[in-house]
Amino acid sequence: VLPFIAIDWGTTNRRAWRIEHGAAVEGLHDAAGVLSIPPDGFPAAAAAVRDRLGQLPLLMAGMVGSNRGWIDAGYVGCPATLAMLASQAIGAADDAWILPGVSHVAGSRGDVMRGEEVQFLGAVAAGFVPPDALMCQPGTHCKWARVERGALARFTTAMTGELFGLLRDHSLVGSAMRGAVGDGTPFREGVARSIEGDLTAALFGIRAASILGLRDDADAAAYASGLLIGADCRSQVVAGATVHLLADAALGGLYRAAIETLGGSVVDVDSHAAFLAGIVRIRELMP
Amino acid sequence: VLPFIAIDWGTTNRRAWRIEHGAAVEGLHDAAGVLSIPPDGFPAAAAAVRDRLGQLPLLMAGMVGSNRGWIDAGYVGCPATLAMLASQAIGAADDAWILPGVSHVAGSRGDVMRGEEVQFLGAVAAGFVPPDALMCQPGTHCKWARVERGALARFTTAMTGELFGLLRDHSLVGSAMRGAVGDGTPFREGVARSIEGDLTAALFGIRAASILGLRDDADAAAYASGLLIGADCRSQVVAGATVHLLADAALGGLYRAAIETLGGSVVDVDSHAAFLAGIVRIRELMP
Repeated sequence: VLPFIAIDWGTTNRRAWRIEHGAAVEGLHDAAGVLSIPPDGFPAAAAAVRDRLGQLPLLMAGMVGSNRGWIDAGYVGCPATLAMLASQAIGAADDAWILPGVSHVAGSRGDVMRGEEVQFLGAVAAGFVPPDALMCQPGTHCKWARVERGALARFTTAMTGELFGLLRDHSLVGSAMRGAVGDGTPFREGVARSIEGDLTAALFGIRAASILGLRDDADAAAYASGLLIGADCRSQVVAGATVHLLADAALGGLYRAAIETLGGSVVDVDSHAAFLAGIVRIRELMP
Repeated sequence: VLPFIAIDWGTTNRRAWRIEHGAAVEGLHDAAGVLSIPPDGFPAAAAAVRDRLGQLPLLMAGMVGSNRGWIDAGYVGCPATLAMLASQAIGAADDAWILPGVSHVAGSRGDVMRGEEVQFLGAVAAGFVPPDALMCQPGTHCKWARVERGALARFTTAMTGELFGLLRDHSLVGSAMRGAVGDGTPFREGVARSIEGDLTAALFGIRAASILGLRDDADAAAYASGLLIGADCRSQVVAGATVHLLADAALGGLYRAAIETLGGSVVDVDSHAAFLAGIVRIRELMP
């Protein structure tokens, strides 16, 4: 495959790499996410990336293909493959291509992703993950994906990280949630408490425990994180399950602790390497 | 019992009545909740109530007895009775009494209420509710209370209403939540969806359904309300259960729909009449 520039262009962050002979040889990582670019500013932003990394074809994934990005690249349905993404790439400008996202619809229910699909399918293409597997990418909106025979068969998004932020920044229980979040005892107590399934009551319990002096306020944020991540994981993980986890170290440690508490096991996957494997394969498959 | 003034003094609202011969003969209802009164402003606020309703003893319940109110009146533990509340009333000033709240502690878990206990126990004292019953008072913080042999045995608070407000006003799914909330089909679909127990994923589904055009945005708020109220009720109501509901008409209709969907039945209880019955009985029991 000839040299090109791959961009993982998300809502608040952007990563770009120059790819030569199928490998990343130079990269950049900045905060120029889609929300920081004015609606007509994408050609100039792309030109600036080329000035840094080379006058080469661009292949982009992520929120750059949303209705708030450069051009709406739509979605391909599940089961989705790298070949489907490659065949549906949209030309945004001369030799600048944007990949679609993936949607999953079952009856009146739907779900969407943009960008994570390149990581999930790239992890399989690279052999990091077997062709039948459960994968998880934690974050503001945590994605749980099932691949079957190498295709992205279905997925679920949980607003776990966003809910934590809402509670900490805007709720009555938030005033107690000022401490650090680690995977120690308070976090694990939250995971254990989440098993009862009454999340809205468990969340009020944070405030009651603070008022009654039953828990040190320094532990409240970690406990709340355990409640939320526990509720998230318990909907997806059964005892004995293996979860392939694409996460940074901090969030990865929390999800690992929760998944192991629920009787599952974790295999860490390098999400950047998975993205690169996926986008190189897509580039090879493009017409 | 001699004439007195009863005040149900909450966070954002206040109701007061002059009680003669055990019955309310004149009342006021205003937005002078605890948060609107400066910390040293309670004597003047109480004097203004007496100027309206008579120079009589005051008996107060609710957040006026919290650390943000006139004086912290503490809590009595479960099982709690009207006699316990009466015996623990705190004198805030000459012939001005504040009732404690109720706390429930089980191991490392706790819960608190202030004001609702007068309604719950008053409903039993008045014969509106049998001495062994499940009661619910919906709201920002929804209270589910079990009375056993006439005493408040235990209770659970769910932050159902607060979570709805957080989602509508501060979350990414909130932009779709602009429609009215009634107990029609979208609300009932939300209740049905809540049965799966994966609330954080179901909430993200609101946004995905909006993006994919699977649900009219006008229905999103009602669906979200159904998810949250459904999750709340499903933790408390088993098929065949009777719930004694202390609610206004709008919220009462939503909880009735959710409880009936879950196979429970509802008996409406007049919460103001319950409060008056409770506070009159407490006044009779005071030393």
